[in-house]
Amino acid sequence: MDNLKTINTLINCFTKLSGIGYKMAERCAYKIIEKDEAFAKEFAQSILDVKRNVKLCAKCGNFCEGELCRICETRKSDVICVVKDPRDIISLEKSGAFSGTYHVLHGVISPLDKKGPNDINLKSLVLRVRDEKIREVIIATNPDVEGEATASYIASLLKPAGVLVTRLATGLSLGTNLEYADGITLGVAITNRVEI
Amino acid sequence: MDNLKTINTLINCFTKLSGIGYKMAERCAYKIIEKDEAFAKEFAQSILDVKRNVKLCAKCGNFCEGELCRICETRKSDVICVVKDPRDIISLEKSGAFSGTYHVLHGVISPLDKKGPNDINLKSLVLRVRDEKIREVIIATNPDVEGEATASYIASLLKPAGVLVTRLATGLSLGTNLEYADGITLGVAITNRVEI
Repeated sequence: MDNLKTINTLINCFTKLSGIGYKMAERCAYKIIEKDEAFAKEFAQSILDVKRNVKLCAKCGNFCEGELCRICETRKSDVICVVKDPRDIISLEKSGAFSGTYHVLHGVISPLDKKGPNDINLKSLVLRVRDEKIREVIIATNPDVEGEATASYIASLLKPAGVLVTRLATGLSLGTNLEYADGITLGVAITNRVEI
Repeated sequence: MDNLKTINTLINCFTKLSGIGYKMAERCAYKIIEKDEAFAKEFAQSILDVKRNVKLCAKCGNFCEGELCRICETRKSDVICVVKDPRDIISLEKSGAFSGTYHVLHGVISPLDKKGPNDINLKSLVLRVRDEKIREVIIATNPDVEGEATASYIASLLKPAGVLVTRLATGLSLGTNLEYADGITLGVAITNRVEI
């Protein structure tokens, strides 16, 4: 016996979300059957609401419900932090270490995925740097191949305008154990060593 | 910055499904924003459809869309396999090793969760055993404390009626490595050893 058709459709939807495999999707679908009707209605409505109400901030590309996101509405700064996804903003805000504005690329340059500089939210960054008289651009893309390539490209684009372009530091994570650190990270940590 | 309110509601719904933590729920919610409107509509609709269309089989308690489930509709057997959840039926059917009918308990006896014999689908099993002239009842609850307790209880309930009550065999999983088998399983495997 396979699953019922209606259950299969729902399982299929779940598998299209990132990080959910078939078994997990199956478990989620069966959980919804177990829950009451009110939950199903709330869940379905919240999916539609999110899709209907959440827009991109006209300035930085972050998610918002109005014209501008809450950060662009309330902060003024001459430092912009460039991130790949809106979720990265949440992580950075939680750290409490940055109080400037952000710019969301919505992706990184990745030739393998056929994503070039024109496929990410870059043009508006160049305009912002000029119009908002930005002093520093911190590039906070992930420290992987695509993230580094994107950072280099943005740096080459912005440096001629005389703006300071920086990159998040790489090295050992705090609280980590040397024994379990991978070789590349360890190599970077040695190269970037600092005087104490 | 926290998440937007609409996004938070959706994340909250996701965390109520089993096996999905906050980080995963967040990722799923953001994935829905990235996907197109058609997907959101299909997803929302399939949640409502599942809740509206999926019922319990009047005979065995499995999920179905009509009066009886597909197995009860098409099979006649004097052997019943008793399972905890409808999902267990799918696993057993995939094994291809059983061709009788099923009975779904929708839970197991678990004093810690305040679940007694009256809280699971047991009464109809007793009636079925009598009315369908059942020859054998295979108890396929999980081989854990609650599953074993439930199996013992069902056996004590059905044996006086003269029906054969059996339990799935326990021992080493096929393809496993002795080195990694836990002590209890190994002990059971030695106790239940068979002549070759």
